[in-house]
Amino acid sequence: MLIAIPLFDRFTALDAVGPFQVLVALPGATTVFLAERPRDVTDESGVLTLGAKASFADVPSPDIIVVPGGPGQASHMAGSPLRDWLIAADQTSTWTASVCTGSLILAGAGLLDGRQATTNWLAMDELARLGAKPRRERYVFDGKYATAAGVSAGIDMALALADRIGGADLAKRLQLGIEYDPQPPYNAGSPATAPAEIVADLRARSRFTSA
Amino acid sequence: MLIAIPLFDRFTALDAVGPFQVLVALPGATTVFLAERPRDVTDESGVLTLGAKASFADVPSPDIIVVPGGPGQASHMAGSPLRDWLIAADQTSTWTASVCTGSLILAGAGLLDGRQATTNWLAMDELARLGAKPRRERYVFDGKYATAAGVSAGIDMALALADRIGGADLAKRLQLGIEYDPQPPYNAGSPATAPAEIVADLRARSRFTSA
Repeated sequence: MLIAIPLFDRFTALDAVGPFQVLVALPGATTVFLAERPRDVTDESGVLTLGAKASFADVPSPDIIVVPGGPGQASHMAGSPLRDWLIAADQTSTWTASVCTGSLILAGAGLLDGRQATTNWLAMDELARLGAKPRRERYVFDGKYATAAGVSAGIDMALALADRIGGADLAKRLQLGIEYDPQPPYNAGSPATAPAEIVADLRARSRFTSA
Repeated sequence: MLIAIPLFDRFTALDAVGPFQVLVALPGATTVFLAERPRDVTDESGVLTLGAKASFADVPSPDIIVVPGGPGQASHMAGSPLRDWLIAADQTSTWTASVCTGSLILAGAGLLDGRQATTNWLAMDELARLGAKPRRERYVFDGKYATAAGVSAGIDMALALADRIGGADLAKRLQLGIEYDPQPPYNAGSPATAPAEIVADLRARSRFTSA
């Protein structure tokens, strides 16, 4: 089972590394980070680089695709090697997944037309504009497409994907392996639970005009 | 505010990237990954590399230190440049933190003698052997030392640290920023909640003889 995680400049690191840490432990899985050519790819902060060890051309037919999000997503909505690879690789993938605004790349590639999907809470309207049916869920499965909400939601999505691939015991084993027993100090991780002024401020600073 | 995340071969990626994704958004923070020399550092899977942009010598006095865990921890319990740097940098740090078995490195460096601390659920006895007072908590603060449980617990610890640094509103803002509204598909993320046979199997495969 070949798992491909495409990277792009200004991706969000946890979008990629959360699902990676779950899926890399799937029995029989080979995981690879890729880009248009092998290189270190810099995240949105400019501080973190993750190594893409393979090129898109090297990995034409992965079984699982996980597309992270991040501000750099905007460069992959048309005419990008990542988008071209995604459209081709999706034709033979068993699962095509995304985290955060990675679902906008999927939708921009025409993969989510009429499908239920989710994304970062700030990008819901944009996801609808691109032809998907947005749902405010932690993660959404529609056929072979699995989309996660913002950033940290990729961990939950990956565990749910492991469940579908290998069953409940495997998913629980992977969950214990990363000791995923979350206890955030506050209940403020969604716009429904965070203080209204924080929600409004983040919305005002967003590059999307949504939600 | 300078945040240093030391890397070492065979670290666990999410141990480092979880807290990174929270702390990099602290107002006024500069975050840096470091190693004995600038290089790409490979995680425990052999698949992921994260770029250490600075050497230990470049960053002698960070305000915050976050030490990840992973199997490679075992090489930093004595006579390693990372350990030497940690002992020196800790003398002037405001906060010294760890995730997963990173706390064993702290303890091995003598920083947790008699202190309450936590670690990966499989390494509790080892942490005690190294002079700390293990607690089965998601994260533990004792003075300026913040230690997190296994892998994903670094996210919770980093939010709690942000709370102490900048207050509740900042912590909530950072939490919403990574949309940390966890909804794991199962309640199996700790040895107290996972099925007994999965707990027993992971224990049997552990390099520690503990818990």
